[in-house]
Amino acid sequence: MTTSLDCVPCFARQALDAARAVSREPVLHEQILRDVLQMLAGADLNQPPPVLGQRMHRRLRELTGIPDPYQAAKYRFNRLALDLLPELSAKIEAAADPFELAVRFATAGNVIDLGAKCGLGDGDVKLELELALTDPFAGDLDSFRAATASAGSILYLADNAGEIVFDRLLVERLPAGRVTVAVRGRPVINDATRADAQAAGLDRIAEIIDNGSDAPGTVLEDCSAEFRTRFESAEVIIAKGQGNFETLSSTEANIFFLLKIKCPVIAAHTGLEAGTHALIHRGTDGGK
Amino acid sequence: MTTSLDCVPCFARQALDAARAVSREPVLHEQILRDVLQMLAGADLNQPPPVLGQRMHRRLRELTGIPDPYQAAKYRFNRLALDLLPELSAKIEAAADPFELAVRFATAGNVIDLGAKCGLGDGDVKLELELALTDPFAGDLDSFRAATASAGSILYLADNAGEIVFDRLLVERLPAGRVTVAVRGRPVINDATRADAQAAGLDRIAEIIDNGSDAPGTVLEDCSAEFRTRFESAEVIIAKGQGNFETLSSTEANIFFLLKIKCPVIAAHTGLEAGTHALIHRGTDGGK
Repeated sequence: MTTSLDCVPCFARQALDAARAVSREPVLHEQILRDVLQMLAGADLNQPPPVLGQRMHRRLRELTGIPDPYQAAKYRFNRLALDLLPELSAKIEAAADPFELAVRFATAGNVIDLGAKCGLGDGDVKLELELALTDPFAGDLDSFRAATASAGSILYLADNAGEIVFDRLLVERLPAGRVTVAVRGRPVINDATRADAQAAGLDRIAEIIDNGSDAPGTVLEDCSAEFRTRFESAEVIIAKGQGNFETLSSTEANIFFLLKIKCPVIAAHTGLEAGTHALIHRGTDGGK
Repeated sequence: MTTSLDCVPCFARQALDAARAVSREPVLHEQILRDVLQMLAGADLNQPPPVLGQRMHRRLRELTGIPDPYQAAKYRFNRLALDLLPELSAKIEAAADPFELAVRFATAGNVIDLGAKCGLGDGDVKLELELALTDPFAGDLDSFRAATASAGSILYLADNAGEIVFDRLLVERLPAGRVTVAVRGRPVINDATRADAQAAGLDRIAEIIDNGSDAPGTVLEDCSAEFRTRFESAEVIIAKGQGNFETLSSTEANIFFLLKIKCPVIAAHTGLEAGTHALIHRGTDGGK
């Protein structure tokens, strides 16, 4: 999808939030904000929002001189999620439909998006997991269940650190030996990289690859050739989060998106209310 | 006060809202948004926010070719307020403290600020007037009452169309023959000009002057020499709204500000919660 005009003021706010999250220097906050305004004034809005996000966060890293400004936040949310994991696993085991609950927890984990919300607290994550037990869930779970059960290869595109721990709950319910989990190639915001997949223990139950890119989404032309080959050959793709949705919703691949709808632009685009946990199918075999 | 970094993304959003309010052309919306981003990237943030607002709305008028884009909205809110006037007058007459209720209604009228909120409805205005009857009101009403009762000359700086009709309720409670009402010199957003003062019937009970400026506030160096003379010689000044507060809160004049606190920046600056109806005194004889 392209970048809405409504995304533009939101990017300016995100730039300021991000600057404040990674530095205490007001002079630097102002410099980053002005730099991003200049970039936005001339931006190509035919590209999806994560392309602008990639440029913005590259500048943030350049101007602060910090190669991974969200490292501590990523560690913190991985830790939080790992602490919650045994309890969530037990709930899934005891559920009438373990697969459904695993999908719900993995989707609820998508709340850990520091691009959308800087000041996310532990309580927000716990509340989201609570809501996942009872809230309506938009999407055709049965076709997702059938597609993943019969797929010879599944490519699972992770989104954020912390969230990736909850993804493990779902990967454990997918056919063993057929799942590859892909993470970002380099740090951007709190998006999961290889270190986070390892922290989540995913390397013990699935193959881990990275996409070679530092976009907060999956910008195929920015990804490595190896990743693109894997993307093209996967029978089923599971893509987590808004950034992956924004960058991949127009491709022809067979993709199940699992995400929390976090902003009015995506709400309008999908026809789902902001706050909804959603499974959206796009692709060659029946997606809209 | 100066312009906070937090005002900058908000200005970008306001530019887009304003563009959509005055035109149905997406190409024009984008052009205005990019133009304002460019302006913001290089803006002098040592000036108060209305200086940026003035530049932004000048560009909006230039790019749309409409000299008074909010004319219909101003007419609509004047009409709404005039319809409500008899009922509010009767409530004031019947009140235990008519002066206090007049102050409350005049302050509640400050909700009609299309810079802060584009899609304001009639219901929002009516609700605000209802709340004015009972909500806590921040400020020392007795010193305001005493200062205005004994003042030889009062300069009343109006803010918005519609709101200016409710200002009449307060002007009627001030010493007859000593009040001058000042409006903007030219159209900007939905700020009141001479036509709105006349629509409100204020010209029959007070002298009307204009400040010669098209800033959505009172930028003294941009005002006419005549206005500045009146400003300097007034014994008491009553200034309505955030724009007047932002531009005049650092001057040494004896000013009572009456406003609804509409954003977190002003809330932080004043120490009052967003949503509060406030009377704030600044000046030589006791203001903080």
